[in-house]
Amino acid sequence: MHSIPQLQEIINKAIAETKYTESPAELYAPISYLMELGGKRMRPVLVLLSAELFGGDIRKALDAAIGIELFHNFTLMHDDIMDKAPLRRGKPTVHAKWSKNTAILSGDVMFVEAYKMMIRVEDVILRQVLDIFSYTASAVCQGQQADMNFEKRADVSMDEYLQMIKQKTAVLLAGSMEIGALIGGADKHQSKLLYEFGENLGLAFQLQDDILDVYGDPEKFGKQVGGDILANKKTFLLITAKELAQKEDHTELARWIHGTDHEPEEKVKAITSMYDKLGIRKLAENQMEVYVRKALGALDMISVQNDTKALLNDFAKTLLLREK
Amino acid sequence: MHSIPQLQEIINKAIAETKYTESPAELYAPISYLMELGGKRMRPVLVLLSAELFGGDIRKALDAAIGIELFHNFTLMHDDIMDKAPLRRGKPTVHAKWSKNTAILSGDVMFVEAYKMMIRVEDVILRQVLDIFSYTASAVCQGQQADMNFEKRADVSMDEYLQMIKQKTAVLLAGSMEIGALIGGADKHQSKLLYEFGENLGLAFQLQDDILDVYGDPEKFGKQVGGDILANKKTFLLITAKELAQKEDHTELARWIHGTDHEPEEKVKAITSMYDKLGIRKLAENQMEVYVRKALGALDMISVQNDTKALLNDFAKTLLLREK
Repeated sequence: MHSIPQLQEIINKAIAETKYTESPAELYAPISYLMELGGKRMRPVLVLLSAELFGGDIRKALDAAIGIELFHNFTLMHDDIMDKAPLRRGKPTVHAKWSKNTAILSGDVMFVEAYKMMIRVEDVILRQVLDIFSYTASAVCQGQQADMNFEKRADVSMDEYLQMIKQKTAVLLAGSMEIGALIGGADKHQSKLLYEFGENLGLAFQLQDDILDVYGDPEKFGKQVGGDILANKKTFLLITAKELAQKEDHTELARWIHGTDHEPEEKVKAITSMYDKLGIRKLAENQMEVYVRKALGALDMISVQNDTKALLNDFAKTLLLREK
Repeated sequence: MHSIPQLQEIINKAIAETKYTESPAELYAPISYLMELGGKRMRPVLVLLSAELFGGDIRKALDAAIGIELFHNFTLMHDDIMDKAPLRRGKPTVHAKWSKNTAILSGDVMFVEAYKMMIRVEDVILRQVLDIFSYTASAVCQGQQADMNFEKRADVSMDEYLQMIKQKTAVLLAGSMEIGALIGGADKHQSKLLYEFGENLGLAFQLQDDILDVYGDPEKFGKQVGGDILANKKTFLLITAKELAQKEDHTELARWIHGTDHEPEEKVKAITSMYDKLGIRKLAENQMEVYVRKALGALDMISVQNDTKALLNDFAKTLLLREK
């Protein structure tokens, strides 16, 4: 059994050793660049853990793990163009460092490379793995489009929001785990349970992200606190606040959202106070807990007992530790 | 046995019947729009013909044929962004009609849809088909990047040019035929022969395109004659002319290429005269003939005799009919 840091190391080593020697170099250099920017490698770690959960050798799952990470980074490369983002993990984004055209085409070829890695699974699970991967890939694109659409809309319902974060974030975690499970030897029913675990975990993670944006320790969080508030991002918190705010509160919230001459700090402070008044943090934490409980329930139904299962269980439970 | 117009009709019908009902609509509407702009459907026609050549039922090859056409149109959607093209088949391009972001993301999801269609082949050939499709997809991206690189370079060698058109154009025709052959029941050796036929045919087609740009009948060709000359495009003709032009001719050619104050018509006339003087058209036609002969040689080695083989033979031979 491997720990998460051990798996991260294995993945980072595999990524560093993957050399894209094909030409033209302009097409492949951005792939190595983006892949080597680092990160927590959560998705490929989950592929390996899922294989190990069912007694599979993680070496058999490594190609698929890299394939998932390639796919994830391909979406980042294209998303960064769409979002006009200058930086990714503190370094210039691919379109900023090279050009938009390079980021488009290099992303496309990266997507092919992702499929090439996924295809390396054994014949007996090839079709299942590709079905999951393709379904997942469509969902991520759908989620990204929905997210962009929401930016232009005044009102987004909670159902729409939850559907969007499911597609954009949760499905890929879920698919990573289902694929890892199949490689590890799980049957369809068991691997579906792990999909369910991953999906609910992904939803909980996204809600945690929404909460941390407002209530996180800026040192630990690594981002500007209140970024979502300043961007009027329709998060779980804002959507809930809009639903709950009555009369003057509703008017005040609208004033902060639609006003253009507020000092940034003042706006973050005011909306955070409104969230506090309405008890939004507690509601978000409760919803997060619902997802974590669902995830744990699915994990519990999986018919293996080993250290990896305990690790996944603990991993999910860390989301229940509330920062006071 | 089906004729080419019959196969085109079958493909157009299948495309018209494919409804992308998934949401968000913004993501899927551009796919239908681009797919329904029409065209000769050469690639999917070749998939179906290749299946039929080996006695396969074209209905079994239809999904893969649509998959190839989806992939081809995905590359057009992204190429049009990169080339800043306002029109495609006389209609607004996707990025012009919607937005760049939509064209990026809709293209990405179109690529997933292409893989989804390819995955529908039978288990026994699934891995082979996906290997060919992924190889082909990488090659097309590589060719597009090389083509963009060439625009910024003063000198491109003939070897580099031929490699680029092979990747950008020929490999997809070849891959379409190899996949069709496998679906039709061909073994690996027979399907490789058809790949060779397709690749050489693709190279011949591209050279024909280069020739027609200068010497084509504007009515039949449907494009502005001399477009490549005005854009200083490094075609087979220009590269050959640069290789052959001596002393004053070389200076004159360079003057026309690097000058910026020429009348367009004058430039087209002058470079065409230079091509005539150097016998470039004949050289290009000879090279085209070499490719067609190679294609026919590969086809001849395929161990079936039927009407479809005769049709493919005739199809290739039309490239030998020279417009005087």
